[in-house]
Amino acid sequence: MNLPNPSHPSIDLSPNTISIGKYLLDRLHELGVRHMFGIPGDYILGFFKMVEESPIEMVVTTNELGAGYAADAYARINGIGVACVTYAVGAFSLSNAVASAYAEKSPVVIISGAPSLKAIKRNQLLHHMVGEHDTQQGVFEKLTVANTLLKDPLTAFREIDRVLNACLRHKRPVYIELPQDRVHHVPSYPHTPIHENPVSDEDELRESLAETYTMLMVAKSPVIIAGVELSRFKLADLVLQFAEKNGIPIASTLLSKSVIPERHSHYLGVYQAAMGRQSVTKFVESSDCVLMLGAMLTDMDTGIFTHNLDENRVIFATSEVVRIRYHHYRDILLHEFVKGLLTQPLPKYTRALPSEKNPMSQAWQAEVSQKITVRRVFQKVNSLLNGKFRVIADPGDALFGAADLTVNESADFLGSAFYATLGWAVPAAIGAQTAEPDIRPIILVGDGAFQMTGMELGTTRRSGLSPIVIILNNKGYLTERFILEGKFNDIPNWNYHKLPEVIGSGIGFEIRTEGELDLALDASLKNIDSFSILNVHIEADDYSAGLRRLGEGLAKKL
Amino acid sequence: MNLPNPSHPSIDLSPNTISIGKYLLDRLHELGVRHMFGIPGDYILGFFKMVEESPIEMVVTTNELGAGYAADAYARINGIGVACVTYAVGAFSLSNAVASAYAEKSPVVIISGAPSLKAIKRNQLLHHMVGEHDTQQGVFEKLTVANTLLKDPLTAFREIDRVLNACLRHKRPVYIELPQDRVHHVPSYPHTPIHENPVSDEDELRESLAETYTMLMVAKSPVIIAGVELSRFKLADLVLQFAEKNGIPIASTLLSKSVIPERHSHYLGVYQAAMGRQSVTKFVESSDCVLMLGAMLTDMDTGIFTHNLDENRVIFATSEVVRIRYHHYRDILLHEFVKGLLTQPLPKYTRALPSEKNPMSQAWQAEVSQKITVRRVFQKVNSLLNGKFRVIADPGDALFGAADLTVNESADFLGSAFYATLGWAVPAAIGAQTAEPDIRPIILVGDGAFQMTGMELGTTRRSGLSPIVIILNNKGYLTERFILEGKFNDIPNWNYHKLPEVIGSGIGFEIRTEGELDLALDASLKNIDSFSILNVHIEADDYSAGLRRLGEGLAKKL
Repeated sequence: MNLPNPSHPSIDLSPNTISIGKYLLDRLHELGVRHMFGIPGDYILGFFKMVEESPIEMVVTTNELGAGYAADAYARINGIGVACVTYAVGAFSLSNAVASAYAEKSPVVIISGAPSLKAIKRNQLLHHMVGEHDTQQGVFEKLTVANTLLKDPLTAFREIDRVLNACLRHKRPVYIELPQDRVHHVPSYPHTPIHENPVSDEDELRESLAETYTMLMVAKSPVIIAGVELSRFKLADLVLQFAEKNGIPIASTLLSKSVIPERHSHYLGVYQAAMGRQSVTKFVESSDCVLMLGAMLTDMDTGIFTHNLDENRVIFATSEVVRIRYHHYRDILLHEFVKGLLTQPLPKYTRALPSEKNPMSQAWQAEVSQKITVRRVFQKVNSLLNGKFRVIADPGDALFGAADLTVNESADFLGSAFYATLGWAVPAAIGAQTAEPDIRPIILVGDGAFQMTGMELGTTRRSGLSPIVIILNNKGYLTERFILEGKFNDIPNWNYHKLPEVIGSGIGFEIRTEGELDLALDASLKNIDSFSILNVHIEADDYSAGLRRLGEGLAKKL
Repeated sequence: MNLPNPSHPSIDLSPNTISIGKYLLDRLHELGVRHMFGIPGDYILGFFKMVEESPIEMVVTTNELGAGYAADAYARINGIGVACVTYAVGAFSLSNAVASAYAEKSPVVIISGAPSLKAIKRNQLLHHMVGEHDTQQGVFEKLTVANTLLKDPLTAFREIDRVLNACLRHKRPVYIELPQDRVHHVPSYPHTPIHENPVSDEDELRESLAETYTMLMVAKSPVIIAGVELSRFKLADLVLQFAEKNGIPIASTLLSKSVIPERHSHYLGVYQAAMGRQSVTKFVESSDCVLMLGAMLTDMDTGIFTHNLDENRVIFATSEVVRIRYHHYRDILLHEFVKGLLTQPLPKYTRALPSEKNPMSQAWQAEVSQKITVRRVFQKVNSLLNGKFRVIADPGDALFGAADLTVNESADFLGSAFYATLGWAVPAAIGAQTAEPDIRPIILVGDGAFQMTGMELGTTRRSGLSPIVIILNNKGYLTERFILEGKFNDIPNWNYHKLPEVIGSGIGFEIRTEGELDLALDASLKNIDSFSILNVHIEADDYSAGLRRLGEGLAKKL
């Protein structure tokens, strides 16, 4: 018997022909997966071989944490990403990347190998095993929105559908454990892929939009805070239409930076309350109606909760909840709410944007023998941005200083701006350029963070990637020096610019002056076949204003 | 009121003087902790400062996974080890090291910072947070034998005692979460440290020893398999006494290799069933009474379950269970069982050890222009071993080939021989030499594993350590090539010997011949102030016999 499957003709659903591994691969390919990131290991080798013979390319990284961060960045750009690893030693090694994807809402699928069910039934102590055989699934249950162990052929296809649907719906990581002896197992029943199509509660949607309409109609100076979910759910264009149609200014947050093109006439800047540029903060906080769309109220995005927004004037809509003033709607889909906004006949608002110019935007002119500073590194980087680059910033001054960069296109900026995990940027750049080969990553990273994961640059050689790495080398954990100083904040000074000699590709530069920075970046721009690495010596007492304010704020919390 | 505490006079227990952080430090110091391994981060900075002002030294590693592996190796040698990290980004990053310590029974204490309870009560989205604030504790609950969140000052001291006791009793990792605002908090009540002193069930102990005695009395050719718990519980000397007194030969397992001095007259070799040296396997399996003491029946230690031991002749005693033939005793302490063995008036057995010589033990003489092979690398290393070195082997051929090295003293060999986590050896060497500065690590590691964590060599510069790293560089995941070949098994060839130029210390060598190996090791032995790294080029089809047998065995399981 052949079951027709008109909506997905590419998947052949004749009984007895598709194995569990193949079905998983087909579904991922259908959802847009063209690359996976991982490390082989015996329990997952069979699936790696299957990927090798599929249209999906496996990018083998230097370690699993790197694979996880790369898959995270790939997912942010591509809409879905996959990390594929072996049991225990592989999966636990990337748990921090999964936690990161959960915290910052990135749709990453973790596929982990596992011992054969036959071996597990014998209750043997198999290598890599930690306690019981299901310890790992229990751990990942806590770090994902859905998880499954594909042990039962009768439910395996349905389980794959369920877990992938949850990944796309919540834009958060999911976990699939694939035992060795299930990869090639062909279930005997036919299956039609199930695609969820959830809808909002009609009454909640209507009432919340009516309330929003009423608040906007009496407002004189509304403002939009565009959050990161607009990027995850591909709603930025709709929100921009809404803003343009009604003349409403838009701010972003640090986590969502670049969700709105930053040279757009309605764009205000990054709102960070007391930690941000004061002209932006003042403009937002004096608004009489704040539409927060897809934003998370994190400490990092609210200037450590220094935000001063009267809840009586706030409409807060995310994929999880719509909150208007002090009441909540629990069953509204974000995209339906945003579409609803667009249908409302609102007045055209005319509040002028603050006249203060972004301090970054002045033209770059190197003073060649002048000692290089953090501020000038950022100005130089800003002068390069033209839509052909993606700035990827690691936590620390690299991130806080980058807040004021003027990025041009959507998705031109990526940062670990809430979970704030050091060492994210280099592996993330691998994922980002794999997703969009023509957009070169410019990585801004501190020396401490680079030491954690920087060797992932070795992966560029396999994949022909060309990121430009700018290391702000101040020989220490600078953010922490503000909070509490101790010799534990010191970091040994490595010759980062000599890494190309070890890896056998790439070009490196050691930089102490503005002139050297200019020359190095000129050469890096021309070096399109491999990575470029700039070891920029920064004085220990040199830092961005944003970092100073943040460090002081965090210190008060200790 | 002052409570006297005669058994631990060093701890001042006057009410209101000891903070929770200080009590934790005092207890750890009392248990023998002299170093911790970690990375600072804002939620744990206050505790790092407290450590800096204590007699305990904090070794700051390059990343948290490295800290975890280092603490694991330190614990194996020192009896207890500590890794200290910040919330989420720090703790999740070392979860694989905790899993490793759990699987291989290593007493590691994880101390994680956490947001202040005040902030958590406000239910805010704090940076690093993943879902709920207790997600992390839930994860580590699955990877440890005891865990606690030190939120309540009324129970904090008791909780610290409980968790540390569990660590020492089970020789497995424990987890302590220390909120920012509890580090300096001084509970108002006095507390006397509680030391557990568990005892065996008397009847179980008596009966099991009587059964053992009966079996040994009729045996002609008993043999002991000395497992890793003899090292963890410091019982190796007692077992050796027992073996010497009664003339019983002893084998080790791969995981416990070196628990018995390998030049001891009663030492047989490493028992690995079908994967091991056949003379050892035959000797053990033809015994009429096998005493397995503190061993784990893992796939790695049983040659992937190829062991051929008649259960009717086996006495299997571990810290968790004593199994004689087909019945179990659940409440016997391993050290009491071992002590009980020594009191038994047994005959003197006289079975001769197999006459086959260890193939490693032939004298080393380089053929200078001869291309270097894996077999010859191991012979050369074996010729160096004199009690001043500790061989630390990463999984793969580095480990399987090392099985036949003749190590001299107890604890002269460390390997990730059951959990088999690639990249363990370099960070483990940091922990090992920190615990015993005069014993130089000789690290045997494959190129794939080295790429994962090798940059942890940077930590040697901070700490003045001098490991010798021998990279078996065959440009691939060799073990996996045996199981299933694919381009995913290829590893880019780095110039590992140039790493000293990046790190700014150490010396490096590129090696293709026996003569080059000789020269490099001579220079490395003289280089006592920094690390030495040997990039040894190995042909892709060159491997040890042990690896060939293991790879073939694993392939059958796919």
